[in-house]
Amino acid sequence: MTPILEEHAAEVAGAAERIRGHVRRTPALTTDLDPNLRLKPECFQVTGSFKPRGAFNAILSLLERGERPRGVIAVSSGNHAQAVALAAAGVGLPALILIPEDANPAKVAATRALGAEVIQEGITFANREQRLREVMAERGYTLVHPFDDWDVIHGQGTAARELLEDEPDLQVVAAPVGGGGLLAGSSISAKHHRPSIKVIGVEPAAADDAYRTWKSGHIEKLPTSPTTLADGVRTTAIGARNFEVMFQHRLVDAIVTVTEEEIAQAVRLAWTRLHIALEPTGALPLAAFAAGKLPPGRTGLVLSGGNANLQTVATILASQ
Amino acid sequence: MTPILEEHAAEVAGAAERIRGHVRRTPALTTDLDPNLRLKPECFQVTGSFKPRGAFNAILSLLERGERPRGVIAVSSGNHAQAVALAAAGVGLPALILIPEDANPAKVAATRALGAEVIQEGITFANREQRLREVMAERGYTLVHPFDDWDVIHGQGTAARELLEDEPDLQVVAAPVGGGGLLAGSSISAKHHRPSIKVIGVEPAAADDAYRTWKSGHIEKLPTSPTTLADGVRTTAIGARNFEVMFQHRLVDAIVTVTEEEIAQAVRLAWTRLHIALEPTGALPLAAFAAGKLPPGRTGLVLSGGNANLQTVATILASQ
Repeated sequence: MTPILEEHAAEVAGAAERIRGHVRRTPALTTDLDPNLRLKPECFQVTGSFKPRGAFNAILSLLERGERPRGVIAVSSGNHAQAVALAAAGVGLPALILIPEDANPAKVAATRALGAEVIQEGITFANREQRLREVMAERGYTLVHPFDDWDVIHGQGTAARELLEDEPDLQVVAAPVGGGGLLAGSSISAKHHRPSIKVIGVEPAAADDAYRTWKSGHIEKLPTSPTTLADGVRTTAIGARNFEVMFQHRLVDAIVTVTEEEIAQAVRLAWTRLHIALEPTGALPLAAFAAGKLPPGRTGLVLSGGNANLQTVATILASQ
Repeated sequence: MTPILEEHAAEVAGAAERIRGHVRRTPALTTDLDPNLRLKPECFQVTGSFKPRGAFNAILSLLERGERPRGVIAVSSGNHAQAVALAAAGVGLPALILIPEDANPAKVAATRALGAEVIQEGITFANREQRLREVMAERGYTLVHPFDDWDVIHGQGTAARELLEDEPDLQVVAAPVGGGGLLAGSSISAKHHRPSIKVIGVEPAAADDAYRTWKSGHIEKLPTSPTTLADGVRTTAIGARNFEVMFQHRLVDAIVTVTEEEIAQAVRLAWTRLHIALEPTGALPLAAFAAGKLPPGRTGLVLSGGNANLQTVATILASQ
């Protein structure tokens, strides 16, 4: 085991200690689908996704280091927004979230309900990074990046760490990959647990930048944000830190892609056989498993969240 | 505590021991909805409902008593069918299930997939009891009753028993009531745990025989099987043994009823906030909780199952 892996795994252990009491320990579930399968349903996490693990670790680490942020800021139309809002409120810091104008109103309302200030006016997917820099300069708030941040990566690694504490014999661990926070964190926990474990990232074929990055050995960027049911992984490229962990240190063994139809089938399978209400992004590892795209063996799937658009899900469920 | 309650609770403890290894210990979940709420999601039980607890206890108890059944038989269009099929297969006994002709084909297929023989031809809701007696006489198989059976009641009581082991401070426990197997078993476990705990049964207003039975003090029977989203509780009357436990021994404190709209809202709430895919029957206690119909205090909801008709659920989810 390399010293770098040891260091990262120690940081994940530290994160687990730091965020205890702020997040839930989600259960490891067995299913009727396959005796080799174990699920880590992060849809049961606070706010309905794994994201508070990273957000709490980032914000609590800021305070531990003695930084005195005036507030925290994030750009997100999805689960990261609610996670940062919750974590900031938990430590009494103001949170400002930039959410593109065309985002799901339910997610905007949920973010506001957690006490965050939300700015939507004039924010588009294209200009949001620029607007972020401007607002950060105006307010002096500290950024909580959704994935390309060591504290966030180490926080996200606590989910797979718990899964392997509960199910130490797993031979394969699969997680969705968007920006790479969850997958990088998971790979640290899994490879530290046992170097021979296979760590697989799953992404939509329509958003295959991580797959192409794995193949080419350098960060590949999609020209535009892709259209996919799995709206949690519409980032155009993985982060530099995520690349370093996953591919330079080779902690991730493979990236597999799934079709939109395989994602829809997995959402239906989750409802009918697992009885878990997953968002399409959260169903990505299940899609790969059901399509026979994961290596054989005792397999743990990190199901990242459950905050689906209800109309989308109703359509998926009705179209068998 | 009465000797009768002690005896029943000892039988539930025996059932828990007997069925261990055949059923799952489902987790107790916390939620973002209310810090006082705990869930026992029996949709994650084998076959997707609590029913195998009773079915395994009944069939294993038969064998323990030295009875040598030629096979077991049940009448069910729902979760009891799959539970009996699974439990019979688990001990190597043939299972024959009578399922009305108009039943959901998916449930018929699931029952067959578990190795049971299914008879549907000529079976209606009206004539099924008559046909059951005939087929029992022909085959010499032993009946596994869905609720009016001590072994079944004691098996079903293991769910609330586990919940109270995990969450000993609960002040209220609520469960759906159809024939009364789950509620009677839950009431034994809850009142044995703490006599002051409130035990509440929840049923659709459209199928309020248990409510009227509680009010009148004798078993009230609906004239016909009611029409309700909660198709798992369409029985027209509770069983005699269930009546004895629930109302003669006063182990159940109240029955509350919920409207069809409250049931639909609870299914949507389960998806959007709890991320659990419940069948409408499984959502009954949540419907009562969300409608403010349960007593105050730390509350455990026994969510009975997740085997929903997907089209029905898609319609419910789409109609916000």
